[in-house]
Order: sequence, then C-alpha cells, then structure tokens
Amino acid sequence: MVALHLSFPTTFNHQAKLPIQGLASSRQKHVSKLHSSISPGCLFICNSEQLQHPTNPISLFPPVDQSVAAIVFGDGSESRLYPLTKRRSEGAIPLAANYRLIDAVVSNCINSNINKIYALTQFNSTSLNCHLSRAYSGVLRGKDGFVEVIAAYQSPQDQGWFQGNVDAIRRCLWVLEEFPVDEFLVLPGHHLYKMDYQKLIEAHRNRKADITIMASSAIRDQDPGLGLLKVNTENQVIDFRIKSDREPASSISAEALRRSRNSTYENISSMGIYLINREVVARLVNEHFPEANDFANELIPGAISTGMKVEAYRFDGYWEDMRSIEAFYQANMECIKKSNIRYNFYDRDSPVYTMPRCLPPSLIRDAEISDSVIGDGCIINRCKIKGAIVGMRTRIGDGAAIQDSVIMGSDIYQKNDIESSGNEGQAKATPVGIGEDTQIRKAIIDKNARIGKNVMIINKDNVHEGDREGNGYIISGGIVVVLQGALIPDGTIL
Amino acid sequence: MVALHLSFPTTFNHQAKLPIQGLASSRQKHVSKLHSSISPGCLFICNSEQLQHPTNPISLFPPVDQSVAAIVFGDGSESRLYPLTKRRSEGAIPLAANYRLIDAVVSNCINSNINKIYALTQFNSTSLNCHLSRAYSGVLRGKDGFVEVIAAYQSPQDQGWFQGNVDAIRRCLWVLEEFPVDEFLVLPGHHLYKMDYQKLIEAHRNRKADITIMASSAIRDQDPGLGLLKVNTENQVIDFRIKSDREPASSISAEALRRSRNSTYENISSMGIYLINREVVARLVNEHFPEANDFANELIPGAISTGMKVEAYRFDGYWEDMRSIEAFYQANMECIKKSNIRYNFYDRDSPVYTMPRCLPPSLIRDAEISDSVIGDGCIINRCKIKGAIVGMRTRIGDGAAIQDSVIMGSDIYQKNDIESSGNEGQAKATPVGIGEDTQIRKAIIDKNARIGKNVMIINKDNVHEGDREGNGYIISGGIVVVLQGALIPDGTIL
Amino acid sequence: MVALHLSFPTTFNHQAKLPIQGLASSRQKHVSKLHSSISPGCLFICNSEQLQHPTNPISLFPPVDQSVAAIVFGDGSESRLYPLTKRRSEGAIPLAANYRLIDAVVSNCINSNINKIYALTQFNSTSLNCHLSRAYSGVLRGKDGFVEVIAAYQSPQDQGWFQGNVDAIRRCLWVLEEFPVDEFLVLPGHHLYKMDYQKLIEAHRNRKADITIMASSAIRDQDPGLGLLKVNTENQVIDFRIKSDREPASSISAEALRRSRNSTYENISSMGIYLINREVVARLVNEHFPEANDFANELIPGAISTGMKVEAYRFDGYWEDMRSIEAFYQANMECIKKSNIRYNFYDRDSPVYTMPRCLPPSLIRDAEISDSVIGDGCIINRCKIKGAIVGMRTRIGDGAAIQDSVIMGSDIYQKNDIESSGNEGQAKATPVGIGEDTQIRKAIIDKNARIGKNVMIINKDNVHEGDREGNGYIISGGIVVVLQGALIPDGTIL
Amino acid sequence: MVALHLSFPTTFNHQAKLPIQGLASSRQKHVSKLHSSISPGCLFICNSEQLQHPTNPISLFPPVDQSVAAIVFGDGSESRLYPLTKRRSEGAIPLAANYRLIDAVVSNCINSNINKIYALTQFNSTSLNCHLSRAYSGVLRGKDGFVEVIAAYQSPQDQGWFQGNVDAIRRCLWVLEEFPVDEFLVLPGHHLYKMDYQKLIEAHRNRKADITIMASSAIRDQDPGLGLLKVNTENQVIDFRIKSDREPASSISAEALRRSRNSTYENISSMGIYLINREVVARLVNEHFPEANDFANELIPGAISTGMKVEAYRFDGYWEDMRSIEAFYQANMECIKKSNIRYNFYDRDSPVYTMPRCLPPSLIRDAEISDSVIGDGCIINRCKIKGAIVGMRTRIGDGAAIQDSVIMGSDIYQKNDIESSGNEGQAKATPVGIGEDTQIRKAIIDKNARIGKNVMIINKDNVHEGDREGNGYIISGGIVVVLQGALIPDGTIL
Repeated sequence: MVALHLSFPTTFNHQAKLPIQGLASSRQKHVSKLHSSISPGCLFICNSEQLQHPTNPISLFPPVDQSVAAIVFGDGSESRLYPLTKRRSEGAIPLAANYRLIDAVVSNCINSNINKIYALTQFNSTSLNCHLSRAYSGVLRGKDGFVEVIAAYQSPQDQGWFQGNVDAIRRCLWVLEEFPVDEFLVLPGHHLYKMDYQKLIEAHRNRKADITIMASSAIRDQDPGLGLLKVNTENQVIDFRIKSDREPASSISAEALRRSRNSTYENISSMGIYLINREVVARLVNEHFPEANDFANELIPGAISTGMKVEAYRFDGYWEDMRSIEAFYQANMECIKKSNIRYNFYDRDSPVYTMPRCLPPSLIRDAEISDSVIGDGCIINRCKIKGAIVGMRTRIGDGAAIQDSVIMGSDIYQKNDIESSGNEGQAKATPVGIGEDTQIRKAIIDKNARIGKNVMIINKDNVHEGDREGNGYIISGGIVVVLQGALIPDGTIL
Repeated sequence: MVALHLSFPTTFNHQAKLPIQGLASSRQKHVSKLHSSISPGCLFICNSEQLQHPTNPISLFPPVDQSVAAIVFGDGSESRLYPLTKRRSEGAIPLAANYRLIDAVVSNCINSNINKIYALTQFNSTSLNCHLSRAYSGVLRGKDGFVEVIAAYQSPQDQGWFQGNVDAIRRCLWVLEEFPVDEFLVLPGHHLYKMDYQKLIEAHRNRKADITIMASSAIRDQDPGLGLLKVNTENQVIDFRIKSDREPASSISAEALRRSRNSTYENISSMGIYLINREVVARLVNEHFPEANDFANELIPGAISTGMKVEAYRFDGYWEDMRSIEAFYQANMECIKKSNIRYNFYDRDSPVYTMPRCLPPSLIRDAEISDSVIGDGCIINRCKIKGAIVGMRTRIGDGAAIQDSVIMGSDIYQKNDIESSGNEGQAKATPVGIGEDTQIRKAIIDKNARIGKNVMIINKDNVHEGDREGNGYIISGGIVVVLQGALIPDGTIL
Repeated sequence: MVALHLSFPTTFNHQAKLPIQGLASSRQKHVSKLHSSISPGCLFICNSEQLQHPTNPISLFPPVDQSVAAIVFGDGSESRLYPLTKRRSEGAIPLAANYRLIDAVVSNCINSNINKIYALTQFNSTSLNCHLSRAYSGVLRGKDGFVEVIAAYQSPQDQGWFQGNVDAIRRCLWVLEEFPVDEFLVLPGHHLYKMDYQKLIEAHRNRKADITIMASSAIRDQDPGLGLLKVNTENQVIDFRIKSDREPASSISAEALRRSRNSTYENISSMGIYLINREVVARLVNEHFPEANDFANELIPGAISTGMKVEAYRFDGYWEDMRSIEAFYQANMECIKKSNIRYNFYDRDSPVYTMPRCLPPSLIRDAEISDSVIGDGCIINRCKIKGAIVGMRTRIGDGAAIQDSVIMGSDIYQKNDIESSGNEGQAKATPVGIGEDTQIRKAIIDKNARIGKNVMIINKDNVHEGDREGNGYIISGGIVVVLQGALIPDGTIL
Repeated sequence: MVALHLSFPTTFNHQAKLPIQGLASSRQKHVSKLHSSISPGCLFICNSEQLQHPTNPISLFPPVDQSVAAIVFGDGSESRLYPLTKRRSEGAIPLAANYRLIDAVVSNCINSNINKIYALTQFNSTSLNCHLSRAYSGVLRGKDGFVEVIAAYQSPQDQGWFQGNVDAIRRCLWVLEEFPVDEFLVLPGHHLYKMDYQKLIEAHRNRKADITIMASSAIRDQDPGLGLLKVNTENQVIDFRIKSDREPASSISAEALRRSRNSTYENISSMGIYLINREVVARLVNEHFPEANDFANELIPGAISTGMKVEAYRFDGYWEDMRSIEAFYQANMECIKKSNIRYNFYDRDSPVYTMPRCLPPSLIRDAEISDSVIGDGCIINRCKIKGAIVGMRTRIGDGAAIQDSVIMGSDIYQKNDIESSGNEGQAKATPVGIGEDTQIRKAIIDKNARIGKNVMIINKDNVHEGDREGNGYIISGGIVVVLQGALIPDGTIL
C-alpha cells in the first residue's frame, strides 16, 4: 500500500480544507465586531478575504455534497473555438498537455465537495461524454456522486435543439430535479480558474439570496456577453445589463471602477457563474420567463425585476475565459510561465483531475527544453523546445525547433515510432508528429496532425485571420492552428 | 439518468445525517444548561441521546474523512466459526443471503464518512481480499478513500504470524502511519450492528480522551474476553478487567448493573471497539508495552495503569457478536423477523454495501414463502419456505420444505438448472442445491452443497455438538452445519 | 477468491464456445463433400445447423474482437412504446425485473466477443447513456472494448436530428470509422433473443458478402417495415421489398413460405439486422445514396440494385421484436413460463449483463407465489402473486393479488418501507408500491408508481386502446399501463 | 469518443496478433514438408521462428483465455533486491519511471490473452496487493478475468510460511483449482521480457507435453539456481540439473552450446518458467513429491524421473532476470538506450500496463536532457540529465547534474514544489527530491528520498559492496542505493 495509494492526484491533505460546515466556529469570533466594521469598500464577500457576514450559523445548512448540484455547460455558442471544435465539444479540447478543457471546472467541483455534476451539451456530445465518463466515474462513484452528460434530445414535448443556456435548463429540469438538492451551481465549462465553491455557497446561504452571481474584480477586457453588475453597499445587485455592441468593451475602465469603489454603487463584471436556489430556477424558467433563452440577457435582469434577492460574490483570483483561440492559447501559456504561475497543476490540495492513463515515460534523446511542459509518453529526439506545451505521445524529429506553441499530441503510437528518427525510408508517408528539421512558432497543432520535414510554421506573412482549412490550417489572432489529423507536407512554409 | 442512478444502495439522503462538524450549532443551544443538568445517571454519552458535553466546539476538528482510519480485524481466534471458516476468512462468510460478514462493519464506516479502511487478516486472506476489493473499490475510490487488506507477511524484521490484535497493529504500524490521520478506530469485523461512528469520534474529541472504548449496555451473555469496564461519574474508565474463567459469565447480573447506575461507579461490558489517538497507539505498542499482544488483556489495562485518559462511550442499539455458530445463526435470523427487525437492510439512510452483482431475478414456480429472505437469482420450484435465509442462486427442488435455516446458495449456475425440476435422468450426479422432497430444519447449508432428494436434515438425534466432517457436516449448538461443497446423498437422514 | 469471483454473471465456461477462428478444423472435415451435398432446401447457413460453406479458411480472418463493431440503435420510431418512453429512451425501459431492454442485444455482443459497441440515440438519451456506462464500463474495459453512446448532436455541418437509421450512421461515420474494423454489425436495440453473432460473421466472411441480412424463419406476424427477402438457391438476396400497407401482414402465409422452400426462390422476413463491410457502408451512405435515410426502404434495395453481394443468414431461434406494448408485455411473460422457456436468463454460458447492484435480498412475509420472477430487494407482505414480473424494490401490501402483470419496481426505498404494512397512519400519502388489498391483472406498472389500497387494475370496461394519461395510465392492446411515478388513489377501479 | 478512447495503452491493433487458434491454417501449409525438413539444429520451437510441429490441429484446443491460468511469484528469495524490498514486495519495486517490476510479466499475460492471474506472495504483500488491484482490476474485469493476490496465510491445516515456490502452489492448490483451467503457467515476477505465451501454449499442446520449460538461448551469466536442461533432438528434456556452486557459471560456454547444436543433445538454460498441465501439478505436489519445495531442485528433476513428458521451448528474445541490484539497474538502463532498444515500452501491439494515473505534465524550466526517460508530473529546473530514469513527481533543483542513474520519484507533491527552486527559506527542512547543485552518478535513488543541496552521490571511494543503511544508503555492485525516504543532508559526498 504505502507507496502506492498515492498515485492518484489528491492524496495527503495534511491541511485539508474544512468543508463548509467547519467554518462555523471561526466565524463566531467575528460576530461581535461585524456591524461596526463594515465599510463600503470592503463589502464584498471575497474568496481571498475572511468571511464577513456570518449572520446565519452555517452549520444549520446541509452538507454541500448532499445539497448542491453543478450544471456545467459543455459547449458554448457554436464556433468561437473553431476549428478545435470541428470534431469535438468545447469541453473535450485538449488543454495543457494532459487535460481537457472541462477538467478545470469539474475539478473545482470535486475539490469543493460537489459531487453531483450534470454536463449539458449539444455539439459533438460524444467526445465530451466519453471523456467525462472515463475520467470521473471512478472519482465520483463514491456514495452518491456522478457526472451525467445530458445531450440535447428529442422527446414528444421538445423537438428542437437547446436555444440557449436557460432553454437547456428548462428542458432538462425534470432530470435535474430528480435529485433533491437545494441549489444549482451554473458553470460555463470553458473557464480556467481555481476556486473553492464552498465559500460562494456559504455566502449565498448566509445572505439568504435567491441568486448569487460570481463577479470578477480582475479588470480587463471582459466578455461583454456576460454582463455588468451594479451593486449597492449591501452587496445586492441593483442592476444587470449587457454591454451594447456600440459601447466599447473597455468603456468600464479600470479607473472608473476604482473610483466607484468609494461611492454608493459599484460596477463589476459578471463571470457567468450563478448559484441559484432550486425552486427559484423552476419558477424563473417555467413561470416567470417561459420564453427566456439566456441567463445574462433575460433571466438575471428578469429576476431582479421581479424583486428577487440577487447578490454578488467577488472572485479575485486568476480566471481565464477561453472564449477565443487567443484566450485558449493564453490559458495554455499560463501553465509554463517561469514565475508567478497563476494556475497551478501541481498543488496537492486542489488537484486537477482528468482521464487516468498509463502511458510510458517520455523518452528524450537529446533535447534542450525550457519553460515547457511535456505530457506523458512523448518521444523527443534531438531538438529544441522553448515555451511549449507538448501533449501526450508527441513525437518530435531530429533538428526540430518548437517555440511558443501548443502541440496537442497523438492518440496512438505508430509502428516504428521509436526508430523513426533519422534516416528512415524516404518513400514513407508522413507520420503523425513533428518531422525532422521543422520549425514551429506561435502555433497550435491539433491532435494527430502529421507535420512533415523541413516545414516552417511561422505565420510568415504575418496574417491575423485566415481560413486555409483546405490546406489543413487556419490562422486566428495571428496564431496558426493546424487541424486535427491534418497533413502538412515536407518543406511547407506557412 | 433519472431512474437509473439510484440502483446503488445509497441514493436519496433527503435527511442526510449531518457530518460531525455540522453538530456545532445544535450543541450551542444546550451550552447554557449544561453544567446544571448533569446527573450521575445520565453521564454517558450515548448514541441515542442528545450530546451532553460539547465543551469543545467540534467544528475546530478536522473532518472525519481526513482524520480517522478504521482498522478492521478480518478474522478472530482461529476456529470459533469453524467449519464456515474452513476455506475462507471469517469476514468472508456469507451473511443474510446477499452479504458477507464483514460488510456490516465496513458499511458502518462508509456511512460514518470514514473512508480509509485497513483490514488486517492472516487466515485464508485471499477470500477476504477478493471480496473487499471487488465490493468497495468503487464506493471508496473517491478523493482519497481505500480499503486495504493487510495480510500477515514476512519481512526481514518480522518472521512470524500476528500474535494477537496488538501485535498485528504493531507490525503493520509503518503501513498504518503512512496516512496522517488523528485517530484509529479499531473494529472487530464479525459484529452485526449499525452505528454512526461520528458520534463516538465527537465524544472522544470533546473529552480529549486518549482512548475511548465502546461499551454495550445491552445486558446479556457477553463475550468474557472483551472485558468489563468500571467507570466513574465522569465517564472515565477506572478499571478494566477480563472476567476470569471461573467467574460465571452471568455474574454481572442485569440487576447488579441496574443498581450500580445510581452509585458512584458502574460496571459495563466492553464491545472490543476502540478509538485511539494515533500517537497513543505508537507509544503504547512500541514504547510502553512492546511485548503486549492483546487489547483487552494487556494494552487497555496497561494504558489505564500509565494514567492515560481512557473513556467509555455507551452504545445501546442492537449488536450481535457473531463469535459462535449459534450467534451467527441468530444474527441471520434477525433479518427475517416478522416484527421489530433490529438490523434493517432496507434503510436508505444507512445502506449495507457489498459486492455488486447482476444476477437474474429469482424464479419462483410455485411456493409458499413466509418470514424469509430470498437472495438474487434463485430458482425455486414447488416448495415451502418458512423462516429461512435463501442465498444467491439457490436451487430448491419440488416438494422441498425448509424451515428456520440458512441456505448460503451457490457460486454458479449449473447446466439445466432451469429444467432440473421433476423427473430428470436418474443416473445424474446430485446437483448443487436442495433436492426434491428434502426437508431441512434449523440448519446452515454452506455454499455449493449438494443436498440430494428425500434428505432430512433435522438433527434427528437431537445432538448438541457433533463432528461428522467426514460425512460433510458438523453439529454445533444443536445446529446442523453442512460444509461448503459437501454432498449429502439421496435419502440421508441427519 | 474462490467462492467470490463468481458473483459476476459469466464465470465457469466449462464448455466455452469456441471463438470464430476455432471453427476452422471442424470445417475442414466437410470440405470434400461440399459441392456434391448441396440441396436447395438446406442452402441457408443457419445458426442451429452445421456450417456448410467453409470455402474460405476462417482462420485467415482477424479475430472478432478486433475487427467488428456493433452499432446498436437505442431507440426507434418515436412513440411505439409510449408511455414507457415518456421519460426514457427505448433501450432504458426496465425488462424482466432486473434488466433494461437494451441489455439483451448488448449481452449478445459481449457473449459473441464483440466489444466495440456504439449506441446511437436521440430520444431522451441521458437515460440510456447512464445505464450503458454504468452497466458495461467494467465488463468492456478490457483491452480495447467500449460502449459509446452517440447522441444526436449539432455540428457546423449537421444541424438537424437524425432522419433515420441510415442518416444516423452517415452523420456519425467519422466517429464510427475512427477504429479500423472490417465490418459493422447493425442491431436494433429492442429485440429479445440470444445469438452468437460469430456464426453470422463467419458466414458473411466465407461467402465474401458485402452485406448479410439476418432473416427469421419464425413464421409469424412480422413487422412489415423490416422487409421481405427473396433469395435464390445460392443464398443470395435477389429482391428486397417492404410490404405495402395494403398488403396484409399475413399475406406471406406460412404455407406459402413452406412451399417456396422447394422451389428455386424463397421468401423470408428480414429481422433488421445487418452485417456490412466497413467500406461498403461508407460507399453506400455517402456515394451511392447520399439522400437515403432508411435501411429497409432505401439502402438495402439500393445495394442490390448496384450489384452488391447481399446474402441472407437465417436465424431460427426465439426472437421477439418489442415494437409495441403488447410485444413488450409478451417478452416479459416469456421469462416466467412454466415450461419451455425460450429466453433463458439463467444460462451460465450466455449470461445477460446489466447494471450491477447490491440490494438486500427480497423479504417475503407470507406469500403464495407461482410462475413469477422476483427482482432484487423487494418487500412482499401477505399476498398472492401469479404470473408476474416483480421488479427491483417493489413493495407489495397485505392482501394484494397480482396476476399476469409486469411491476417495474422502485428506484428508492422509502422511510418505513419495512414497517409500512398493516395499520399505519391513515393520513399518510400513498407510498410507492402496491397498496393493501389491491388487485392487478394484465397490467404494466411503470417505475415508482404509487398504487393505493383497495385499487383494482383489471381493465374493467375491457377497453382495447385508451388514453387516460391525465389519470396516470393508458390502455394499449388491452393492457393497462400505469405511468412512471403515477398516483392511483385508494379505491380506484380501472 | 474518437480522440478519446485511445488513451489507454492498447488502442489500435491494426495488425492484431492472431490468437492461438488462428494459427491453424498457416500451419496447414507446412504439414506436408514437415517430416522431411527436420534437421537437428532447428528442432526447437522458438518464438521467432515458424511453428514446426503442428501435428495436432490447434483449433481443437480451448481458447487460452478460458483454459490457462498464470501463477506469478511476486517475490523471490528474501533479500536479493534489498534494500529496494525493505518496505515492499519485489513485484512492487518501481521500474522505468512509470511502472512496477511485476508489470512486465502481467502485461505479457494480458497481451497473450491470459486473463486469470494469481500472484503468490508472502513478503510485504500489501504493497503488491495494492498495486495489482488498482492497476489491473479495470483491464481484467472483462468477462472472467482477474488478478488475485494470494498472500501466505494460516489455516487449520497449514501454520507456516511458504517454504518455496512448490510449497506455495501446494498450499494454494485448493484456490488455484477452483477455476477449471487446463494448464498453469508458472512465472517468476521479476523478469523483464516480452513474449506471446500463446506460442508456448500451442507448442505444449501440440507436443502433448506434461510440462514445458521455457529455456533461454541468450548465452550469458545465467542464474545457476534456475537449472540446466539437456534436450534431445525431439526437443524433450532428458536431464535437468542445478549447476553446482563449484562449477563456474560460465562453464557452459557459448562456444560449447553452439557446438552442441549439431550433436544429438544440447544443453540450454532454464528460465524458471513452466507450463504444466493442471492435473500434473496436483499429482506432482501432492502424490509424487509431497515434500518438495522447489521447482528447479526437486519437482522438475522428479517429474523427469517419473517418466513424465517434459519438453523445452526456446525463447531467444531480450530477457533480463532482475535477481540482483545490478541486474535491476541494467534492466532500467535498457529503457533509455540510444539505439537497439530491446524492451520497447512504446509498442502499441504489446503495451505495458500499470496503475493508471492522472498527473500533470512534466514541467521543465531549463534543462539539457539526453538518453533519458522522464516520468509523469516531474518538476525539473535548470539542470543536466544524461542516461537517467526520472520517476514520477521527481523534483530536480537548479544546477543539479544526474547521470547514469535511476531516480524513482515521489509519491506526493509537497507544498511549494513549484516555487521551491532557487533562494527559498534557508531554515527549511530538506524537501523530497534532488537539491540544488547536487551531482548523482550511477546511483539508484528510491522513492521519497530527500537529497540535499551540493550533495555528490558518486561513490567517491569506489566501493563495490557496502552497508551504510544507518546513513540512508547501501552500495551494491558499485551502485549507490539511497533508501526510500532517506535524508542525505546538504553537502554530503558519498
């Protein structure tokens, strides 16, 4: 046993996080000074601060693993991550060499003791289904955990596809309600961040909110579609609106936000993450707004208009909304930063789960590698790798140079992978992997691509957006994306 | 999903038990009246009463699933359940048609949120190993749960077998200590009862005890080897001794015990269940008593003598110590009682786990069945069954009558099981199961036994103890026990 | 180990079926007399006869587990099994107390050594997904087996639902082709039969067929939509057509078929089961008939018209096409027949797999039970059960009488299930299960229904078809079907 | 699915090995020329040659997965791999960064379609038990596969430990016989090689042998304890003997062997691998030689003496008998050879299985790595690695240099692993991993060792054998072995 039962990611939790109930006592100490110490600027219940509003003893609440179910959206609005989504759901896109995009959010759930997870999807659902059932069935099959993929389906009542995240919940409500939880935690599946949702849940319950919206205080170019919150000093959401197209995304400047901190109201950005009481969901989607399709555009403003108690919960950690090829690329790059890594895969207290594998170790023949991560089972010959994500089973030929790129790897080994370096037969087809003397810079090479020898993928014409799908790649935000399984012949220069 | 994810035993915990931390608030209410309300007679912290001594806010304690490991003894002193243990560890003896003996205790652990379980064994360990790994690997493989069978083993330091339960712990301590828990819960594996150990743990922590001993207030013929506790009004164990052989087991009469309730000291019976702080275990077995082999005889009295704080925790529910064939038989009979079932397998809040199966439903051709349980996949023809446990895959022929008996069933189906009733070929070998026109009364029929036709297993000579192992059975306490796989030819009368 | 590793269904295969390659030698013996012994009447390669055409040494073929993938259709044309499909996919309908409808076909695959199984679905896919992943992930996770649910999905290319079984395959072909098999075995998921597909595969390969259609020689009221085959003496399909609506289903009388046996051509009924070479599938659905949606109407006639080699393979065993409530009811009744059971769940050589459970044994207080099967974990009080399927966790009250019915059981235990018989509180809500003194005859009671006391479900008005969905039931073919979770109040007479 | 179901090791078996039955036809072609073509020099049935003696049509034999069980010995004679076995069974020693020693043999079984595996052990069995149950339960849980650890145990009949491999089999025979296989394949667990045992089985069956011994034709320093075979031109073993101590191991020179090829008899070396008919095992261990303890010394010579048919089967591939620290070291070094790798972990047709993990990718800050393998989840800073095995979760500090060494890695991540490089707090305890500026050459660093900064592990005194266990290491064969969990303080020079 001993040396063995530790190979799964969690293991020793020497300083295990107290589950939510455990916080009762520490809060008790602060009760007395609560009402005197409130100042407008620190009203928010923030994940990195002490809890401020323990008006309700949390221990009266049921434990999180019995009372909260997560609803994860496995794919978003069609094509924003195309062509990575050509053959898979967004959530199934490979991330950081060994993971899939949805693993970050699902791991947050598990680490927050939420073990009832529904993943809703309608695009290429099979890929997501397969990943989730293989990756999490073991982890969650404890007492009553599960991760269930709910693919869009036809039924006598509903013939069409999901028309939006609200419509999806409405149509799956009979499934979601089978298990008597108290709250639903609505989570987009394409975010990269670490959070203990138990703090959010505790704040929500203490405040007796109907809906709590997670809001990012990281001031930057936010997705305008997620919405802007105006909150009062009591932390309640007074107004919620979508930025109009005309309004520049940066109109809510950092300066403006900073200034507003000291005023009565504050504007902050929604992260599209909602904790909603179960019966509130049912009432909103079926009674109040039976035609609503979208949370940010319709349901949340509607809930406020009907007088529901909508609260904000501020999250101030690292958070990447991978809603474009560029953002996805940035999220990958975050994993290899020399210092100040903001998303830590190596933290034993909040491990990131994914599909278990038993690949061989990576074989490295002669390489200079810097600021990179190497996935399982790679075969790396004489080459240079700098600032790169090298995915599982990637084969890299002699003389190759890879820089600032994401190589997603391969699903299989090929015959002769191990001998394929050097002077093999010239007539052979281009094998999966990176050919000899090939250079790659600022590119994403999707799974199973066959990059020939002496290829240069360097965006030589400095194109910003370009669709060369017929040639096996597109360019998005200046990043060359080679399609899954694409062949880039010897000597090609992109 | 919906109708499906509920087929594992737990399922809806509408009124889920609060984990141990959750008890903080309810205790708060009682704090004020605590010191005034103590009367000597209700000093014990008992599982069926309100908690009385919340001097320590429990929520400061780490969660149970991180901080307690159970040590289950998979087998006891050699031969007490022989011949059921001829080819298996005690813990692997079939119980109540669908279970194994050890399932009761392991299920208690799981339902108490204890998910680190070591099972120590040295007799026929393979059977136990196989059962535990198949039954619990799925249930416990959540974040960091496991059930590890530690078989006695040779190592350069230790060449012999375990010399007792203390010796077993001493020799496995390096394994047991790998995981940094706070307490070990020492559990004999052959007890039938339901208990939420979280209450025991909470009492132990609140009292800042070194060792807490679970003691039964059910006054009856106790195993003298478990020991007697003398406790003071502060609930502390003043004295611990083993009843001498000369002293009749019933010497501590119910009357005496009842009387002593109102005096300063009280005598109660140990159940052989101990909660011990981790570092106390190490100190006791290695430093203080490096030669001790047994808890009741040596370690517990020793701990008291060294001034450790040894407390008692009273359990007043149903508890059966299956330390003899008779007690094992009684435990089985408990499952089929018409009223007042004391061990409830059908309680969704504390399910009993075991190895998952996917057998066909039981086929019943024409039977009168009363006060019985029928395991999975039986084939029951025209017969009468009264007061019986009928184990998995049992085949019962036409005209058979079974009463007050435990039929353990079969491991496989045989060819023609489905057609085997009635006038089949006469020359055939006796098949596994109960033959036509056979009568069985007050017997235990072990797995895969072949009981012929017109057999009468009725203990006709009213023998109390008898060893007929050569003939395929023994008699113990008036109960006929047919050995695993034994053949009882047609027409035999026992 | 020993007594333990046998609780999964397969176990001892003393006379294990030889895999397909193993047949080589027995065929060798027949080679010499082959060409002389062919007579028109025995041309068919039939699963119950010796193999006749071993012109190709089978052992040159790759093993089945590497070279064949099954495509199971998890649901059919909308509403034929309504209301059982109201909240679930057809394949997830409970069958024979312990199973789901799709288990029969998937178990055939496993027992035939086919371990790559795709289940295509678009109606209520979640239920099927959940069942399959839980039931089969363990069984198939061997070297490279899997069961993948492919739910209908949106993609940039395909926006609509599947338009038919051919359309479904066309749109999923990129998934199906990922694994380099030689043939696809197309299987409707709602058939009840046992077959070793290896024989079909061998015949197909020996005959070098492009497509082999399984055809039933059981002469009866066939689904006209499956099609009629006209075959020549060489076993080749000359013509394939759908019976017109005007043509009575029985127009192909048994007499006619029998007569045609001695002529040059023979007409037999397709079972809707096809074995098709992988590249033939691709050619047919994309090149030849890119608009075709249905196998029987379009693809098979089309394949014949293009000159492909389409063969017939005759199956003469028990086969039930559960395409209506009546047929589903009959299939269930088949499991409890007194003699001549045609679908044997108790055969250890071809076990039926399903989701593993660990429920308690069925508790029977005082019951007369005949010609019935009792699922796991029932609680049966003083009652009579005759000719019934009693599903998992069914609770039956005192005085109840159930006859010729299918009770699907319950997903959970309720509080007090064990004490609920007799004089409980009168004001309580009707619990799940069958109430006291209730009579049920020729009915299907779906999961979690609450049948009150003194209810009579006897189709008193002898209705043949009736829609009382508002009252919790419908009548189809004279069978009363109570809906999932429906409440039938005390004293109701249907 | 698609891109996902391939992450387990097997995957596409484009050219899947034909199972044993499939070989029938190819052998048919050779039948005619068989008896004429036999020449003494090629008498052996060798795994790399064509099959020569197909006198029996193999397809009459039952399939391997039903008829053969493997018995793997999980540990050998006490102390040969000490100190790696201090806290674990031999089979559980980490090998090649991601594996355990026993994985090679168990993977051979799985890849040979043998799925009933018993692992016998008595030293530190828990470690082996844990590894095997976690690594293989998923892979083998198909229809009827299993891997069962049988730890030495006490029973009423047997009180002592196993006295040798024959004694172990004798005492476990009642377990081993439960499943009705035809042959047992006896396998030492500490060998590194790849072989399709189906060829051995086929030869055994064709020759109608009682026992077939696998014999290595690789001429080298063989373990004298395995025995020497003298075989005749009919491939039968005429004589079997253990080399005496006085006889130099190399006395059977390559030259001598080569010459003997053309003579009537030939001497070859046993590999300690035996295929034995099931009833022959029972007869030998219980009837003929009830006192025998060892195969090579007693049982095999005895079987020959009783006239049993004992055959040889020659294996001429790579084979390493890891019976010493040196041999273990060499086996590891084999995995990183620049060319001519003889044990290929990257072969998709014969994958090596082990415990699945989901660790993060290896983070490499700035390293020159050559001829090395890097296990999962390492954190490698600015350093040089040459000719090294770097095990899972290894942390290597800035300035370190590792050469010709085996680093086994760590079971857990520590706090601050990711930031721990460079100028951290000076007062901290030495963390697990390799400290800054440390040099390691020709060493084995066991799991969880804490190597400080500026340490030199270079065997500076060129010691060949040395026991410094008190200082955390021993030297064996000139290789420094740092013990599991040992601390080597900053600045130490070994």
